[in-house]
Amino acid sequence: MKKYVLGADIGGTTVKLGLFTTAGELLEKWEIPTDTEQSEKILSDVAESCKEKLRGKGVSPEECLGIGLGVPGPVRPDGSVDMCVNLGWQEKQVKKEMEELLGIPAAVGNDANVAALGEMWQGGGNGCENMVMVTLGTGVGGGIIVNGKVVSGAHGYGGEIGHLLMNPHETRKCNCGKTGCLEQYGSAPGLVRMVERALEDGETDTILKNGEVTAESIFRAARDGDAFAASMTEQFAEILGRGLSYLAGVTDPEVFVIGGGVSRAGEVLLEMLQRHYKAYVFGRQKETKFSLATLENDAGIYGCAKLMMG
Amino acid sequence: MKKYVLGADIGGTTVKLGLFTTAGELLEKWEIPTDTEQSEKILSDVAESCKEKLRGKGVSPEECLGIGLGVPGPVRPDGSVDMCVNLGWQEKQVKKEMEELLGIPAAVGNDANVAALGEMWQGGGNGCENMVMVTLGTGVGGGIIVNGKVVSGAHGYGGEIGHLLMNPHETRKCNCGKTGCLEQYGSAPGLVRMVERALEDGETDTILKNGEVTAESIFRAARDGDAFAASMTEQFAEILGRGLSYLAGVTDPEVFVIGGGVSRAGEVLLEMLQRHYKAYVFGRQKETKFSLATLENDAGIYGCAKLMMG
Repeated sequence: MKKYVLGADIGGTTVKLGLFTTAGELLEKWEIPTDTEQSEKILSDVAESCKEKLRGKGVSPEECLGIGLGVPGPVRPDGSVDMCVNLGWQEKQVKKEMEELLGIPAAVGNDANVAALGEMWQGGGNGCENMVMVTLGTGVGGGIIVNGKVVSGAHGYGGEIGHLLMNPHETRKCNCGKTGCLEQYGSAPGLVRMVERALEDGETDTILKNGEVTAESIFRAARDGDAFAASMTEQFAEILGRGLSYLAGVTDPEVFVIGGGVSRAGEVLLEMLQRHYKAYVFGRQKETKFSLATLENDAGIYGCAKLMMG
Repeated sequence: MKKYVLGADIGGTTVKLGLFTTAGELLEKWEIPTDTEQSEKILSDVAESCKEKLRGKGVSPEECLGIGLGVPGPVRPDGSVDMCVNLGWQEKQVKKEMEELLGIPAAVGNDANVAALGEMWQGGGNGCENMVMVTLGTGVGGGIIVNGKVVSGAHGYGGEIGHLLMNPHETRKCNCGKTGCLEQYGSAPGLVRMVERALEDGETDTILKNGEVTAESIFRAARDGDAFAASMTEQFAEILGRGLSYLAGVTDPEVFVIGGGVSRAGEVLLEMLQRHYKAYVFGRQKETKFSLATLENDAGIYGCAKLMMG
């Protein structure tokens, strides 16, 4: 009787872990550090920690459906990766290695995709089989869900929406090596850069000229009536709304779930995104809903568990 | 024993029909006119024609898995449509009506999506579970296949790639009511319009200034060394390659299958599309293959049959 399932969201600093019932209840969550100095040990550290937790809980491996893993990078259909820069991994058979270490089945997904699955299962996209989760943080991440399943793509690049070309005239390079990517504008650093440029160009009629400029301070200034800050957040929302229109023209989701640090701006951000999005789509695409992610840092472990459950 | 399956691709002028074995062999294909003057009769005409064919072949309804239908418009998950302008249909329960008329199960899909499914099953995308079919004709149609299934979307707008925004500075309206859509440039009329504009603006150093300008004549002139025509087909391929890069950032297909009238330009078109596409993507997305559709007008009936088979 498989009553339990494990989730491990492997990030560059910590591994978040969770033990769930197959009904979706999070029984316990914990963290271990990611030892990127000894990157070949990361998976065995995860396995050891899981074994210890199962023992402590009196759960036998036979009662465990398996473990879902989220990793920061493209994942191939067979559960292997080309490389995960942030973990120091080159070519690695992640699924196979974990199954050998833990003796139970494993499933592996990209971290952004897995977070989307978590939000679909128990969060802001609950009940939607067709959704897109957009994570607005230091980058722009996307997790595409179609018919209840993550779209990882033929090469593991499904949902890599941060690198959609938005501005063919850009000269600065994105981390990916291209220029004009969505992430260069629609992320927290992108918004900050836009404001800093305007300040360098002599914009003075704003409270942002004093003090540290962060995505948070820009949204706060906009909320407090700073017209310059408001126009910057509108530009930010315009480019993201346009990016979302491309998603709608491809998979036509029922809902966009917006997460990541920038989403703390809340309903005001949703309203702006939706307004710009609507201007770029047609017909019933205009009915696509917008909601905020609700699981915060736990989206990954929920999604890992769900990935394993299929 | 379900040995047979029917496909009916309902277009504005004719309904193309096919009787297949469930192994994918096309046993017979035929056509009937689409009676748009009496649009409420279209489905019963299809049902009558199928019954007659089955009788003639000595196939009993019990041996028939069902019938797949392709219709020109967005299709809801329950097999109903909002409207199909070209057929004179308003709100219609297509699946339900056909099941009552024919007494066997029915499945309904959008025509572009269904054509993609046909190419996946027995055509240019054969063996690929993750592909996109792009139809370049009077419009730009898309059919997205993920894990072997059509992505129809929450509102039936999956694969409506003809209306991705490519040019925010456009002033002319697209048929959809927006401006700057991919279809305004990447279709046969789009290419012709681009050339006609340049001719009006005084371009004279081209054989295209004499005679009728069509997508075919433009590609022919380019092939024959006309530099102006070649630069126009490059512009055409650039904008399409950019559109395909958006698809790659969302579903990351294994292959793009290019069909429709413009695809008769053949390998030279594929080479151009792939070159421009590659400039807009990163990492292993650059490995996405390009191939020509092979089923031509039969893609729809193949896809209808496959849709029914699941």
